[in-house]
Amino acid sequence: MVANWFSRTPRRIEAPRVRARSDDQVTTKVDLVEFTPDLQQFLGRAAYVQLTLFENLSRAVSTAPSTSAKTALGRAAELSIAKHRQLAEEITRAGGDPATAMEPYTTAVDTFERSTHGADWLETLVTCYLTAGFLDDFFARLAQGLAPDVRGRVAAIFTGDSGSEVFVQLLTQAIENDPRLASRLAMWGRRLVGDTMLVARSALDDRKTGNRKSDEARIEPVFTELIAAHTRRMDALGLTA
Amino acid sequence: MVANWFSRTPRRIEAPRVRARSDDQVTTKVDLVEFTPDLQQFLGRAAYVQLTLFENLSRAVSTAPSTSAKTALGRAAELSIAKHRQLAEEITRAGGDPATAMEPYTTAVDTFERSTHGADWLETLVTCYLTAGFLDDFFARLAQGLAPDVRGRVAAIFTGDSGSEVFVQLLTQAIENDPRLASRLAMWGRRLVGDTMLVARSALDDRKTGNRKSDEARIEPVFTELIAAHTRRMDALGLTA
Repeated sequence: MVANWFSRTPRRIEAPRVRARSDDQVTTKVDLVEFTPDLQQFLGRAAYVQLTLFENLSRAVSTAPSTSAKTALGRAAELSIAKHRQLAEEITRAGGDPATAMEPYTTAVDTFERSTHGADWLETLVTCYLTAGFLDDFFARLAQGLAPDVRGRVAAIFTGDSGSEVFVQLLTQAIENDPRLASRLAMWGRRLVGDTMLVARSALDDRKTGNRKSDEARIEPVFTELIAAHTRRMDALGLTA
Repeated sequence: MVANWFSRTPRRIEAPRVRARSDDQVTTKVDLVEFTPDLQQFLGRAAYVQLTLFENLSRAVSTAPSTSAKTALGRAAELSIAKHRQLAEEITRAGGDPATAMEPYTTAVDTFERSTHGADWLETLVTCYLTAGFLDDFFARLAQGLAPDVRGRVAAIFTGDSGSEVFVQLLTQAIENDPRLASRLAMWGRRLVGDTMLVARSALDDRKTGNRKSDEARIEPVFTELIAAHTRRMDALGLTA
């Protein structure tokens, strides 16, 4: 189950799981469907987050020290901005305006962007890899609580190919060339997870449930899984989470 | 002749002029097929130029003052980096390595990038619109001299949708809001054409012909047409070329 969630390959979304609100948490399934906001809110926030991820990635292209790195990162940048376009198209399809839908989230997400900017090219690469990976996982799960007619299509935006292998390749190569980088980049990766979780946490609509303590109990296992996936991404770089 | 290309004097060119500079200039056809370099040279230069155009465009996304402008420019950025990817794929398909093929051109093109950077977001938009428009035209024509099996496919990369209407829309709106911008942006547009022509001119392989004087006579009508198209792009912004 967990492995399935974090699979990087495109996959078919399973049928919706229905859970009674009043149920105690008796199942081992952990999901966020009770906390999914309205469609325009979901899409507006996700679209603006995705724009930020693209901006980080395009900066990584511009500051890359070699043409081969630029071309390789260009592929990931293309996939990233295509995701933003698809989210904006979903906003329009649902009768909204992309800029209007994104506007409420710009201040918080811009703050996130600044704090995850990175001091140099390698830190920016770590940001692109870890924050996009975490947030793709998160939004794909949160999308499961959308209406049945859009759920699969929206979730697929986040589960498609993101070209993330380029980050692993460039970063492991850099660390191999200069092993002293490992501790600095590991520290950066650990710092990122806190800011990224804040962005994810703020996307949850817990007004729908209301019992804060019970909410936290239901949310926590999901974040435990998201952090486990983050740890695996750090592992892939040879870094200690 | 050269002075004519780099003229800062506003002028309007209605139709391609064919000028009989020498007796062997008998045909009215103007093209560049005699000056098309080898495939890897063509693709390497064009791919690196396209990367630079994408970097300008992604900076325009990052520095855009509104989310609606970011989303609109994002579409053009996606098309731009897709073009680079397609050119890199053509290099690979022809048995080359993209980074190796691009390497000889990085210094000259980086100089071009710096000189066409623009002082602010609006100048960057003018750069994205005018330089990409000019160079798409140029490389599409130059591609006609490639081998028959690749010519059509490579030319199509440059003639496809580049999303350029977004620049016209954003710039005409900005000029409408503040008409004083027109003279500064027109001056910037006139300056760009000189640097852009230099990049184009350096892509011509005139070793293939050898008679410098006769070469210039054949090249000039093509540049006259390219400049006429540049003038039409300026017109679309309401600016005097």
